[in-house]
Amino acid sequence: MTETDHEIYARQGMGQTSGMGEAPALVIVDFVVGFADPAHFGGGNIAPAIAETVKLLAFARAQGWPVAHTRVVYADDGSDAGAFTLKAPSLLKLTETSPLSQILPELTPAPGELVVRKRGASAFFDTPLKGWLTFRRVDTLIVAGCTTSGCVRATVVDSMQHDFRTIVATDCVGDRALAPHEANLFDMGQKYADLMTHAQISASVRPRN
Amino acid sequence: MTETDHEIYARQGMGQTSGMGEAPALVIVDFVVGFADPAHFGGGNIAPAIAETVKLLAFARAQGWPVAHTRVVYADDGSDAGAFTLKAPSLLKLTETSPLSQILPELTPAPGELVVRKRGASAFFDTPLKGWLTFRRVDTLIVAGCTTSGCVRATVVDSMQHDFRTIVATDCVGDRALAPHEANLFDMGQKYADLMTHAQISASVRPRN
Amino acid sequence: MTETDHEIYARQGMGQTSGMGEAPALVIVDFVVGFADPAHFGGGNIAPAIAETVKLLAFARAQGWPVAHTRVVYADDGSDAGAFTLKAPSLLKLTETSPLSQILPELTPAPGELVVRKRGASAFFDTPLKGWLTFRRVDTLIVAGCTTSGCVRATVVDSMQHDFRTIVATDCVGDRALAPHEANLFDMGQKYADLMTHAQISASVRPRN
Amino acid sequence: MTETDHEIYARQGMGQTSGMGEAPALVIVDFVVGFADPAHFGGGNIAPAIAETVKLLAFARAQGWPVAHTRVVYADDGSDAGAFTLKAPSLLKLTETSPLSQILPELTPAPGELVVRKRGASAFFDTPLKGWLTFRRVDTLIVAGCTTSGCVRATVVDSMQHDFRTIVATDCVGDRALAPHEANLFDMGQKYADLMTHAQISASVRPRN
Repeated sequence: MTETDHEIYARQGMGQTSGMGEAPALVIVDFVVGFADPAHFGGGNIAPAIAETVKLLAFARAQGWPVAHTRVVYADDGSDAGAFTLKAPSLLKLTETSPLSQILPELTPAPGELVVRKRGASAFFDTPLKGWLTFRRVDTLIVAGCTTSGCVRATVVDSMQHDFRTIVATDCVGDRALAPHEANLFDMGQKYADLMTHAQISASVRPRN
Repeated sequence: MTETDHEIYARQGMGQTSGMGEAPALVIVDFVVGFADPAHFGGGNIAPAIAETVKLLAFARAQGWPVAHTRVVYADDGSDAGAFTLKAPSLLKLTETSPLSQILPELTPAPGELVVRKRGASAFFDTPLKGWLTFRRVDTLIVAGCTTSGCVRATVVDSMQHDFRTIVATDCVGDRALAPHEANLFDMGQKYADLMTHAQISASVRPRN
Repeated sequence: MTETDHEIYARQGMGQTSGMGEAPALVIVDFVVGFADPAHFGGGNIAPAIAETVKLLAFARAQGWPVAHTRVVYADDGSDAGAFTLKAPSLLKLTETSPLSQILPELTPAPGELVVRKRGASAFFDTPLKGWLTFRRVDTLIVAGCTTSGCVRATVVDSMQHDFRTIVATDCVGDRALAPHEANLFDMGQKYADLMTHAQISASVRPRN
Repeated sequence: MTETDHEIYARQGMGQTSGMGEAPALVIVDFVVGFADPAHFGGGNIAPAIAETVKLLAFARAQGWPVAHTRVVYADDGSDAGAFTLKAPSLLKLTETSPLSQILPELTPAPGELVVRKRGASAFFDTPLKGWLTFRRVDTLIVAGCTTSGCVRATVVDSMQHDFRTIVATDCVGDRALAPHEANLFDMGQKYADLMTHAQISASVRPRN
């Protein structure tokens, strides 16, 4: 990005703050075994993002926020293969019982937390997530997970489109390559979501009485 | 992007070709007056992308492909403002009769072509586009328009998620800044869509008898 | 419905109460000129339902509830005709400027109220309604309008599917024929929504301080 | 329904035929153990509808049509309970491994047929069904299953809204009570779908060469 690039966004009024609303929730996107492993879908800065997300999850639970987790899950017989798996056929390995598609042990969902099975990039696409958040009167979605340039980005765009104030936990998202990670943080911050570290998110929340 | 970055995508099986199906359609995203004007939402390489899209539109019409156009349209009284307009308040200027939200004269929709009004980034989000394509048995969506890092990207992700084979017409999409343009072409090519120039698209279509 | 019919629903545990939540909104479905006119889409008990809805709308505004109104709107050139207009071609008369598709004068939207244009039966289908309600933290949707067996029913099913507690204002919904009106109230009350009169809704709301 | 009732629909232009398109698919809604059992969710004319659906499924497979099956599936811990389960709490018994939520043995999905897990009424709501049909260029959806007044009706409305030509296989849909069955067939036939018996569907299809 050149200085001129930043100027054009500023001049056109992009990059304002949507802010933290009254009722946040946390969604953790695709932190499953296969995305923690560079031999499968992982790499880059995903490992440190997982470590930070462990702390963010503990904070969210202490606050009593609704928490949702996503997994990519395709049918055992590949009957639900589609356009995505033409571009990235290895996704078809992520079946219900595949070790690769299991949520990481350090982020194991607690009872009552939602586990979203998805075939697409966005945590919202063809899933119960939006209704689950509506039922809990959530107005702000904090997004952690991977990859920044893939399922996190798609989730953030949909979260904004569903009219949730959206926050990307910048140190809790990771990608297999750093240039797409950075480029997508820029796009999201300019147009779809606020960018905050885990520490900034914690500091922005009023203490619970 | 480093060489290592490209290698990791290749090693993980990304970047395959989804291909041209049997029944393509063209969607032209947000080529309206305000996005052609650097004083409002334009700039960068949007002008040459418009010029190439004029040719692609003529080709699509000659082939008899369904064609859809999108406009961002907000209510005159701002009653439908939401999360997107918190981040980018200037979008609220794009009302039904605002000169800024009118489709460019050189791309004027022909009778029977769909004009999609949208409030979000994706041409599919809360719009009739997917049903309109279903009704015409479309299986492949070719995407032109702007911005590459914004509404084009969001449209491409949703097109793939709706299981259309998706093609980005690389010389028919533009952005206000070149770095996001390039970064988003990379992401889309690796995971969501095939990247083809207008000339490659034309050459890939069998002549009509 | 026979007594046995009612028994089977009771025995299978249907017909429970979903209740009034903390933050209601009102949606008024398709109370436009053409649906008030028996020569076009009206008839039956639609006229008295409109009269009651005038009172319910006044109550909702006094409470400060979000209010949305829907209209069926097709493109002037019929370019967005589809499966619905194969079954009911007369819907294509309902264009943006047609007198038939204008909201009734006694229910004119106030500034800030949402006007939803739709091509389908449900007020939610391909419209911004769900995001608009999310942005306002609504958890309960009260539904008035017409027809009970058509767009009201479809809206109620989607409202429940989007996980809003849903209430049909029984004296504020009407249909061109009474048997479908009654049959659909039964279905909705058993499975999707609570049935309450305008007076019962008013009585269930705590006074605002 | 009085004679006058039928007249008003005819006079207003409802009840036209949307017809059989070029590429049909079959969806079988919720023919699972619990809905075949009057002690749980069954009763009425569901048993004969299952028997007819066995024949329709054989025909669809012989034609090479895409086939999808739906099941209601809630999380084991009830974490995805919502508005629907407030109205009908017994649905929460339908978990992934519950005997009640297993597809009937006589309708066991063949490899490559889609099994849709859903929490709502419609087979389309928050499920991959629409993309799966798009990927196969389907333009016509034939609906069997139960209940006519519940998940069949909701699926038919969404099928029409997604712009599929829609056909209710009248002898392959059933309900726990006959009055709602009949009332909903009437509504669907007037506004959303063609009503055809299994025999009429078979006869309308050109023989495959």
